[in-house]
Amino acid sequence: MESIKIFELSKEYLESLRDAIEIEDNNFIKESLDGANEADIAALLDEFNMEEALYVLRLLDNEVAADILIELDEDSLIKVVKEMEPSELALYIDQMDSDDGVDILNLFSVREREDIISYLQEKEKSAHILDLLRYDEDSAGGLMAKEFIKANQNWNVIQTIEEIRRQAEKVEKIYSIYVVDNKQHLLGRVSLKKIILASSDTKIADIYDPELISVPTHMDEEEVAEIMRKYDLESIPVVNAKNKLVGRITVDDILDVIREQSEEDMQAMTGISSDVEESDSIFKISKARLPWLLIGVIGGLMGSQIIDIFEEGLQKYVTLAAFIPLVAATGGNVGIQSSSLVVQTLASKSVFDDTPWQRFIKGFLIALLNGLVLGLFVFLVVVFIMGNEKIFGLTIGFSMFCVVLMASFMGTVTPLILDKFGINPAIASGPFITTANDLFGLAIYFGIAMWLLNL
Amino acid sequence: MESIKIFELSKEYLESLRDAIEIEDNNFIKESLDGANEADIAALLDEFNMEEALYVLRLLDNEVAADILIELDEDSLIKVVKEMEPSELALYIDQMDSDDGVDILNLFSVREREDIISYLQEKEKSAHILDLLRYDEDSAGGLMAKEFIKANQNWNVIQTIEEIRRQAEKVEKIYSIYVVDNKQHLLGRVSLKKIILASSDTKIADIYDPELISVPTHMDEEEVAEIMRKYDLESIPVVNAKNKLVGRITVDDILDVIREQSEEDMQAMTGISSDVEESDSIFKISKARLPWLLIGVIGGLMGSQIIDIFEEGLQKYVTLAAFIPLVAATGGNVGIQSSSLVVQTLASKSVFDDTPWQRFIKGFLIALLNGLVLGLFVFLVVVFIMGNEKIFGLTIGFSMFCVVLMASFMGTVTPLILDKFGINPAIASGPFITTANDLFGLAIYFGIAMWLLNL
Repeated sequence: MESIKIFELSKEYLESLRDAIEIEDNNFIKESLDGANEADIAALLDEFNMEEALYVLRLLDNEVAADILIELDEDSLIKVVKEMEPSELALYIDQMDSDDGVDILNLFSVREREDIISYLQEKEKSAHILDLLRYDEDSAGGLMAKEFIKANQNWNVIQTIEEIRRQAEKVEKIYSIYVVDNKQHLLGRVSLKKIILASSDTKIADIYDPELISVPTHMDEEEVAEIMRKYDLESIPVVNAKNKLVGRITVDDILDVIREQSEEDMQAMTGISSDVEESDSIFKISKARLPWLLIGVIGGLMGSQIIDIFEEGLQKYVTLAAFIPLVAATGGNVGIQSSSLVVQTLASKSVFDDTPWQRFIKGFLIALLNGLVLGLFVFLVVVFIMGNEKIFGLTIGFSMFCVVLMASFMGTVTPLILDKFGINPAIASGPFITTANDLFGLAIYFGIAMWLLNL
Repeated sequence: MESIKIFELSKEYLESLRDAIEIEDNNFIKESLDGANEADIAALLDEFNMEEALYVLRLLDNEVAADILIELDEDSLIKVVKEMEPSELALYIDQMDSDDGVDILNLFSVREREDIISYLQEKEKSAHILDLLRYDEDSAGGLMAKEFIKANQNWNVIQTIEEIRRQAEKVEKIYSIYVVDNKQHLLGRVSLKKIILASSDTKIADIYDPELISVPTHMDEEEVAEIMRKYDLESIPVVNAKNKLVGRITVDDILDVIREQSEEDMQAMTGISSDVEESDSIFKISKARLPWLLIGVIGGLMGSQIIDIFEEGLQKYVTLAAFIPLVAATGGNVGIQSSSLVVQTLASKSVFDDTPWQRFIKGFLIALLNGLVLGLFVFLVVVFIMGNEKIFGLTIGFSMFCVVLMASFMGTVTPLILDKFGINPAIASGPFITTANDLFGLAIYFGIAMWLLNL
């Protein structure tokens, strides 16, 4: 295993490769990349501009280049494939699994797709791809590949091994062999282990395992991911409405789905409105960040109008202003905590979830407890450490208590409502809830102050 | 495949099962659970109290019960296993893969573990478990299992198939067969597909693939997860410092690691200090939420002291108070956005990351752009829509600009520093950065106001 390790990428190597491209030292490029993992080469090409990346790809075998294309960052991928002629791109897609080919074709318009597909050499592949293009990208159908091994229940072990041999080139990882009847209905699975251990003339019908979880083509990819995680599956068959076997999803695709999902949630929660990375351009990042910042600013300006209403009272009791940040911050923090717990529960949907009522009552009790602790703490500090009047301490402490209750309610309800309308509830944990809580919190705070302090 | 579907759980079934436990209708319990997936039964038992869950487990085969134990929620698992006698628990652990057995033993004290292990029937299993207990739970060693198939490079295909037959019971999913030399050094892998397609007398040395990625026992589990995702692996061999093969990690464990990781990040970001779920008790949830809320409150109280310093100026120009929430909210929102982008980059570590300097300059330029847009917007609204004096509009607008720059800097630097000290940088996206930004923001705002408005 001497020669085999994770390919060591370094800035130095990156530079030397760049120089080699510059002077067209093709031997250096080919030799130094030989045997490297495609995912590592892709990470390297992600750092290059389009011309450099394309130069390297064209030097390599079509099969290797195809594997690298699959692993590229979406930004790099788009740049590179948009530059290729349809005929050239078709050469690479011919080498890919159907699902990966479809992912690339989805970057093009319908007309361009047809053009590229017309150049595909393998007729089976183009049939597969045309079939897969019909499915929504985020569904099980959009995630599945057409490359897998299936065996008819009437075959014996020898016939099945022959099928494996026939498909060996096309199906890199087999996992399970799916068993179907004459009409292609999915009956079950048989593992390679069983095939190896069975005698040659054993009938598949006698050894296959009918206990098999499959998913329909229309299932959302995130639901597929949760099923594969829950049941510890490394591949799952996809069936159409008539229970005919039409594809297979493998766990490597699921790992990508889960990663994208958690990045999406994080961005939604932190008020970044589109999928950006630190390496994107300044304008792209600014543009993704400004919408939510503007909404926050408009919320803040509305807050100033609320405070304006109470300006007279504030004139008389200017110390009230000093506790505005306390009220606002607590409302924000409580709201985010509440919503994140709800979002977490929504993500791992269970049929045994509490009913909305149970959830509200529980959330209310938690808020009551936290509100009492925080309210009392603030009262004590404001009166005994800062030396304010008791009635003023009561104003601040009671406001805290009410704000905790309000923010907790908002933080629980908002994600539930968003989820009902099919909007990613993680948005509710971000600037949205914070802005709303700021406004309600201010109104509560000044309302209580006017009342208790007789302003 | 008629009888095989995801087991349909319903509240009604849950209730009827509960009734059956009450009246000890063992036949109903056993028959209705027969053939159900262990993960589904576990989800059911998670809803039961400890006595009910234990009653059901004891009715089932040891093997089935062991599989269910593995799938239980941690809370339910602890309650159930703590109730069992060491000898009973040992019966179940005897049926588990070594890594799952270790996960359960880790719930007990060292003394209790020894007691349980002494009851294990399978000597090989107890040796495996004693070996695995030495590794940190969050490392590759803590994640790996000792159940896998290895073949000596000098064996032929027939000998390897014999080994598979010998281990068939113990190793449920084979994926790859790892190839070792006489000293157990890892040399490479051979797929089951190759074994099936090769002739019986082919030597393993002639067909194995030396291109294999392995991980050392001490590697952090999150790094293992990232490697398996990047290279699309469904299993990965674990080697010790001498490159001897000591275990195997499978992708199902990695899916759990990734899920836990994203839940952890979300909780860190939203200021929940320990791993809680909505279904936990009110006191547990309150306790997890209070620490960060208290820190936020203390920050708010410190903010009141900052504003107190400027009370005289505030008396003269009380409208200043109205814009405190705007300044605080913007600082918070910008800080969270900045830190979440950094956290995202840190999570997918690449050797080609920008240097800290490039990152600061880029962050500064983005902040400059956003700050200009927001500052100008606020100036225009404050002066032309709200009808304030130009100098007051300038005060608010310029404060906004400065706060955006400050919050952006804090949001970029804090997670980098936390990461350097080995603290989860996601914490920085939560209450911590918000609280700090509130305080700095207030100081900047009032400082600028005093200066521009000559207060």
